[in-house]
Amino acid sequence: MARYYIVVYDVNEKRVVRVHKILKAYLQWRQRSVFEGWLDGNEVAELKRKLSRAINEEEDSILFYSLPSDSNLVTFHLGRPPDEFDNVI
Amino acid sequence: MARYYIVVYDVNEKRVVRVHKILKAYLQWRQRSVFEGWLDGNEVAELKRKLSRAINEEEDSILFYSLPSDSNLVTFHLGRPPDEFDNVI
Repeated sequence: MARYYIVVYDVNEKRVVRVHKILKAYLQWRQRSVFEGWLDGNEVAELKRKLSRAINEEEDSILFYSLPSDSNLVTFHLGRPPDEFDNVI
Repeated sequence: MARYYIVVYDVNEKRVVRVHKILKAYLQWRQRSVFEGWLDGNEVAELKRKLSRAINEEEDSILFYSLPSDSNLVTFHLGRPPDEFDNVI
């Protein structure tokens, strides 16, 4: 059953582009280092497998939150609207 | 009524220490640039006011997610366990 995910990565800049690309194939980009969206069990397993291969487990960390639904999730931000990542790096 | 918050900041490193300190007074630190915890309406208003003063609105961005409760929130991470921020900077 699909759940709604928020994923925040903290990885060495050498691996940011690779990690960003993997996440972008499964989720919507929200803010620098933050992605969100729906994943079913197979997708999350696949995503975890790909990310685990891409990161250095001693240096990098990727945090996953999941919820049964985004219907109760409220979002807002302070400051500038998020840049498109592709314009940032 | 209190809600459960996840807050992710993306601020210029000149302002990281200040923003981190403000967030730490209201929420629990989870991973570099990620905080979470319960806030009632007054607390969140106060926190937003302090953060708005501390950031540069053109350069910095702080993303807030809120939920009625953390009871359906599942968390896990890949890679290293989060460092204590105070050891990082």
